[in-house]
Amino acid sequence: MPKLRVHNIAVSLDGYMAGPDQRLEEPLGARGEELHEWVFATRFWRERIGEDGGTTGIDDEILRSGDVNVGATIMGRNMFGPVRGDWPDDSWTGWWGEEPPYHHPTFVLTHHARDPIPMKGGTTFHFVTDGIESALKQAQAAAGEQAVSIAGGATTVRQYLAAGLVDELLVHVVPVVLGEGERLWDGLGGLAAEPTEVIASPTVTHVRYRINPTG
Amino acid sequence: MPKLRVHNIAVSLDGYMAGPDQRLEEPLGARGEELHEWVFATRFWRERIGEDGGTTGIDDEILRSGDVNVGATIMGRNMFGPVRGDWPDDSWTGWWGEEPPYHHPTFVLTHHARDPIPMKGGTTFHFVTDGIESALKQAQAAAGEQAVSIAGGATTVRQYLAAGLVDELLVHVVPVVLGEGERLWDGLGGLAAEPTEVIASPTVTHVRYRINPTG
Repeated sequence: MPKLRVHNIAVSLDGYMAGPDQRLEEPLGARGEELHEWVFATRFWRERIGEDGGTTGIDDEILRSGDVNVGATIMGRNMFGPVRGDWPDDSWTGWWGEEPPYHHPTFVLTHHARDPIPMKGGTTFHFVTDGIESALKQAQAAAGEQAVSIAGGATTVRQYLAAGLVDELLVHVVPVVLGEGERLWDGLGGLAAEPTEVIASPTVTHVRYRINPTG
Repeated sequence: MPKLRVHNIAVSLDGYMAGPDQRLEEPLGARGEELHEWVFATRFWRERIGEDGGTTGIDDEILRSGDVNVGATIMGRNMFGPVRGDWPDDSWTGWWGEEPPYHHPTFVLTHHARDPIPMKGGTTFHFVTDGIESALKQAQAAAGEQAVSIAGGATTVRQYLAAGLVDELLVHVVPVVLGEGERLWDGLGGLAAEPTEVIASPTVTHVRYRINPTG
């Protein structure tokens, strides 16, 4: 069975993975960018947005490790875009332009059906209306021997963690305190984990967890 | 000026340093012991409670590092004991028996005055009724060239962090999710930190932070 991985989740010291008041102009919420400045500095990120330069080293390497051997991605609707309710038309095709950085089948959780959208570079967005387990089954079928990745956002990650479906979680602890926003760990009392890798860069503490190791 | 250090604070993945419902029988709150099982296993702890055995290695070493070069301790009243309101008599002298593990002047924050209590082994409990800054001044005077340590609990740690008085914070991230209890980071939005040391044992991620490095 393909593994379900959640990787590249940046969290503040107080456990927020996004600030409050997420919207089109501020998709990460107020102060959410502070969690991701170290990402934007890397060569990994610069390549993703088609630019030169960027840092190499620990931060760059661990971000890349999250993308290795992933055959399908799942995301929540709010991560796909700011549209709420019925799709008014087919104009919104994600935040990422013509060629999204996934390059494989990508399943969007929504209550509102929509036809698949094939994009440049191998990403096709599929819209799943019958729940997280159905999305996982479809993603696993699409991934074949490779892993399935949950891209976010917080609500989607928490739903899969609460359902006991996640095998591995890679978090990046950024030393700021946000005080409000979307918490990664809310409503998950009783979850257990086992740190399998801890790597510290000068500013970020990267920790890979195996989830519910005895479950 | 002696540094103010907060060390040996175990927190869950979701940022709790104690469970809910703290009381005499369960001073760490419900499930709070799960945050401290790794402590109880160490030789450091066994020595403190006058027993043989215990593990050596990373966890033991980093716990010991918290105690080095500390000349005075500050704690909240709830950490000193379960008594609330006026002291009914002088019978309560802390959780730790005749010889508490501090071995230096220890300042207890309270609204209720009480005479100092000299204990065996060098610990004297002093009761401070005029606030956290006064307690810090008295502790710094007592510590001389050494550091002052905040022992806890959560409310006391948060008060000193919010006031910008803490220089160093050593946290031990334990991979469990409590879901409720006393959060370390609540009400501290805007606080910044810099990880100066990250050490991982098989079960616990130890991170030492310099607080408000640019402040």
